[in-house]
Amino acid sequence: MGKNLTIIIAETAGFCFGVKRAVNLANRAPERYPDQPIRTLGPIIHNPQVVEQLAARGVIKTDDIAELGPGVVIIRSHGITRQLAARLEKIPGLTIINATCPFVRRAQEIVAKMSERGYEVIIIGEPDHPEVAGLISYGEPERTRVITTAKEIPERFFQQKKPARIALLAQTTQPQELYNEIAGALLPIKGELRCFNTICTATSDRQSEVLELAGRCDCMLIIGGRNSANTNRLHQLSLTRQPRSYHIETARDLRPEWFAGVDTVGISAGASTPQWLIDETVTALQKLASRS
Amino acid sequence: MGKNLTIIIAETAGFCFGVKRAVNLANRAPERYPDQPIRTLGPIIHNPQVVEQLAARGVIKTDDIAELGPGVVIIRSHGITRQLAARLEKIPGLTIINATCPFVRRAQEIVAKMSERGYEVIIIGEPDHPEVAGLISYGEPERTRVITTAKEIPERFFQQKKPARIALLAQTTQPQELYNEIAGALLPIKGELRCFNTICTATSDRQSEVLELAGRCDCMLIIGGRNSANTNRLHQLSLTRQPRSYHIETARDLRPEWFAGVDTVGISAGASTPQWLIDETVTALQKLASRS
Repeated sequence: MGKNLTIIIAETAGFCFGVKRAVNLANRAPERYPDQPIRTLGPIIHNPQVVEQLAARGVIKTDDIAELGPGVVIIRSHGITRQLAARLEKIPGLTIINATCPFVRRAQEIVAKMSERGYEVIIIGEPDHPEVAGLISYGEPERTRVITTAKEIPERFFQQKKPARIALLAQTTQPQELYNEIAGALLPIKGELRCFNTICTATSDRQSEVLELAGRCDCMLIIGGRNSANTNRLHQLSLTRQPRSYHIETARDLRPEWFAGVDTVGISAGASTPQWLIDETVTALQKLASRS
Repeated sequence: MGKNLTIIIAETAGFCFGVKRAVNLANRAPERYPDQPIRTLGPIIHNPQVVEQLAARGVIKTDDIAELGPGVVIIRSHGITRQLAARLEKIPGLTIINATCPFVRRAQEIVAKMSERGYEVIIIGEPDHPEVAGLISYGEPERTRVITTAKEIPERFFQQKKPARIALLAQTTQPQELYNEIAGALLPIKGELRCFNTICTATSDRQSEVLELAGRCDCMLIIGGRNSANTNRLHQLSLTRQPRSYHIETARDLRPEWFAGVDTVGISAGASTPQWLIDETVTALQKLASRS
């Protein structure tokens, strides 16, 4: 690494619209509700540094609804299940700040509406992801399912004589290609297939830019929580184009030896990575370069 | 051709459900409405022999609505436009027998309902086909279009920021592959894509069986009107597997030289070909075989 190190920050690095909104709501909560306990149900976003910062301001993560009493609870951007929302509403003196991403909320409403109207609802997504757990809870259990591949489409859909009525949607962060593939497999079914493209392009835009950057940089840094699925995915994609791709949580994770002979470093960050962690990394990189 | 000629008649040869129903309605009309003039708007089906037989019983084809007065008019299985239906309803003393195929009627209703609800309606089909002329007439003209390839999808659908609401359906006789291809091209569009698989499998079943038969027979006969699009298509498909494939309208079209050295003849017929034309052909073939 020379003194003329070029640092390129991806335009799509960091907070997406829904995360920005959730973090803003959490940040403003201590002012809006002074002298009240403020809790988030689960980490507000999958980023330990942001969670720590909020804790310092009195916005505490809890995983147990039994801990909640009078005060304020913030529902995170992934959303929660219908059952959990109903339980929260019954807790006396509890104010609910719903920071569910509006795109996730829209998907929840689609599941509820389609299920109510008698459609078989198919959700493309990771069964264990909190967003998906929320989505499926809005459907009639008998007629709502989560699938991850076209092979999981029930065989009876193709055999039934009565025209089917199927509604299809996806976890907002799923790849468009998988959505197209599964919808394509459903098309020959007799009847109606109602496809809701609920995929948020923030994820795919970020991924495309990482691939593009990794193709023209000597080294890639992907910043984000180790518990952030979308950050891990960015790192994997980056590795396919640039073996010198590193996943870091903060500037402290940087190792000088990564940058030997490097002229250009590309930086991106997951949807839950705040701008200050990106800025801090850039500053640390510049220091390293000036020393070499 | 020897005396042991094997004749294989396709199970799917001839009248489909909608045509059978239309011809039955036309056949019963003289009894149900004695002493009344009975007209069909255009040929009841694309088969000259059936049209002739009906004419002999007083069920006459007309192409001009001005010729209609008190009496009976039969709407053929392809259906008619909404505007024409409205004009027919205003003719005093005219009884309307609606022999529109129920599958076509369902497609017309989908166009009307989706258009009413504000969807952009896309119909996959041949722009000049009477069924398609009927279908499109049920939509809001500004928001209803007929396309034959994925390339004809308006570019603005992919660019608009507001989530789209698109309803897709097809002329009942379109190939499933084309429907899948066009729906597949629409899937990435933001918003909702409502796919109605209005394709009737009678057509594709008949086509698959012709291909299969043509692959194992020495000679193929496809029976049907020269003006029948689906019969012409069957003949083309048959030719791809068996160069000795002949399109005939009646047994009179048979030529003994076609069957030189032939052991097995396969027979299929278009959706508008009556059973008696198939039977007549089989009888004529058997005669030819016994003579040789």
